[in-house]
Amino acid sequence: MASETTRTFPAKRLEAFIGSAFTALGLPDRDAAVCAARMTESDLRGVDTHGIFRLPHYCQRIRAGGINLRPTVRPVRENAVTALVDGDNAMGQVVMTYATQLAIAKAAETGLAWIGTFNGNHAGCAAVYATMPVARDMVGMYMTVANGNHMPPWGGVEKILGTNPISVAIPAGQEPPIALDIATTVVAQGKVKLAAQKGETMPVGWMIDRKGQPLTDPKRASEGFLLPIGGYKGYGLNVIIGMLAGVLNGAAFGRNVVDFSQDLATRNNSGHMILAMRVDNFQPVEHFKREMDRVIREIRDSERMEGVDRIWLPGEIEFGTMQERLTKGIPLNPALLAQLRQLAEELRVSDRLE
Amino acid sequence: MASETTRTFPAKRLEAFIGSAFTALGLPDRDAAVCAARMTESDLRGVDTHGIFRLPHYCQRIRAGGINLRPTVRPVRENAVTALVDGDNAMGQVVMTYATQLAIAKAAETGLAWIGTFNGNHAGCAAVYATMPVARDMVGMYMTVANGNHMPPWGGVEKILGTNPISVAIPAGQEPPIALDIATTVVAQGKVKLAAQKGETMPVGWMIDRKGQPLTDPKRASEGFLLPIGGYKGYGLNVIIGMLAGVLNGAAFGRNVVDFSQDLATRNNSGHMILAMRVDNFQPVEHFKREMDRVIREIRDSERMEGVDRIWLPGEIEFGTMQERLTKGIPLNPALLAQLRQLAEELRVSDRLE
Repeated sequence: MASETTRTFPAKRLEAFIGSAFTALGLPDRDAAVCAARMTESDLRGVDTHGIFRLPHYCQRIRAGGINLRPTVRPVRENAVTALVDGDNAMGQVVMTYATQLAIAKAAETGLAWIGTFNGNHAGCAAVYATMPVARDMVGMYMTVANGNHMPPWGGVEKILGTNPISVAIPAGQEPPIALDIATTVVAQGKVKLAAQKGETMPVGWMIDRKGQPLTDPKRASEGFLLPIGGYKGYGLNVIIGMLAGVLNGAAFGRNVVDFSQDLATRNNSGHMILAMRVDNFQPVEHFKREMDRVIREIRDSERMEGVDRIWLPGEIEFGTMQERLTKGIPLNPALLAQLRQLAEELRVSDRLE
Repeated sequence: MASETTRTFPAKRLEAFIGSAFTALGLPDRDAAVCAARMTESDLRGVDTHGIFRLPHYCQRIRAGGINLRPTVRPVRENAVTALVDGDNAMGQVVMTYATQLAIAKAAETGLAWIGTFNGNHAGCAAVYATMPVARDMVGMYMTVANGNHMPPWGGVEKILGTNPISVAIPAGQEPPIALDIATTVVAQGKVKLAAQKGETMPVGWMIDRKGQPLTDPKRASEGFLLPIGGYKGYGLNVIIGMLAGVLNGAAFGRNVVDFSQDLATRNNSGHMILAMRVDNFQPVEHFKREMDRVIREIRDSERMEGVDRIWLPGEIEFGTMQERLTKGIPLNPALLAQLRQLAEELRVSDRLE
């Protein structure tokens, strides 16, 4: 069968495909385009778990009534440097694009801005938002409460914490911008599933069981928990992110988080924060960029461990993937392709990705 | 000998002792008092490695001419929400107290502020600064470049990164404020030294050797490196902190970091950043505090692992220690006490801590 190989598609074609699926489900053209752009940017970065891969699930959620298709996304509190944005249960990409643009506009005026959102949804790849201010010579910082709980507090056994990620992006000159994008767990749930599929054993340090013993059989994953990075340190970072992206915004954090893969209809009240800051508050832009390039090269060119080909800076691999995929296209595996073709048929999207 | 037991002293007495030592060395009264206050706060929190324990070393540095005793700490760039502060090679506590007070003053006016500093020095315990805005119902965030390099980049073997810590503090209501304070390495260098002293083996995950193999013999520590929390994730976080606290401020990061325990005289150009933000940008203060209390209790009261007595929130242990030490005093071990008595004699400080 032709579908049984991985096929690559131009980014623009996938973006149009995603947009068509969303408009077919009743999203306004503008919102559909915003979602399509953010999801395609995720695929371009190589963060395949947060791009078009999510389309079937997002569409299920829309069909189940879990998303407001005619939202009014707007600030309910606002001053020159902050805003609390009510996402009105819109698609997460729509809320976070609005919030990030607002942060950039305010920071352009004042130098610095912090926007929080509530009443939102899963917004995809964190670095997509954190890197938006970089184009305007700003630092970006993004945090969010994950849409499902897979980890207990440190010393606990009750899963009331998510993988709460943080992303920070910093402009550079000729070098790719720095873009850290990390969950606060050692690995994502997806890596555990992959190990189970492949019949592999997990390394010690990924998961523990209810007694705190290392859990290395991925088929027993449901009996244990993901571990935070650095033990109690990552647990603490996770809680801080939950409080700044969740509690501060009146959004979900803890037991009131809705598991969006199990429950398609209940309002998520997902919370996010984005900070933007002009680097020229501190240094002339060109000088700062030269210094960033110098430090980046110092790290990359430092002595490597035997057998290590290259030292990577945060976001550098994703930046390279983006350049490659912009010219060569975005690969879709056969299973995903089959899902998307079925979706296209159901929604009468004309492009069947043949 | 009487000195061979641990003795406890009232915080105020140690604070006065520290202040006297610094004035004896020529620091202006006001700066000596600021240093003494910040160092004593560290001891009160139970962060004994960053309090009076540092006094002999700080005094050595002052005597070696490594500190400017008559500094003019001032902003060299400034707007309503940011400032770049030249520390003029003052004591780090003096620079960071100035910067944090400036951040609080600006955030009180505008809602949000980010202050960066260069030309500073080691400022002690991170949480001491991050928690200062909390008393004004503000979130605090602090990052700094550590004053010595003990870790290579991920995949490298050249020690060009420090333990670069981050601290974030968030107000609560009846519960202790949240105060995360973590280095981005799994353990501090001090824990390795302690294991060596005790003749213990280190757990896998603390250090690796130059070939990337686990290093568990603390006596071989010089052949290896500290590991970042979460592997490449902690490395990335470490680099981000170095760039935001160092490069952005024109301060040291990477090979130009001076190891302040080896080199007493060279200007450190230590960089720090502090952010302060009013929570009432987002929620009425009382409502926010109630929600924080609710979430804190939800986490603490969640189901515990067998054998675990209590689930702790970030900063809760330190808050408890502070309450205890405010009433019972601060313990000093015999070795430290002997050092401090010798220092008192040399500097003709009248209190000999007898």
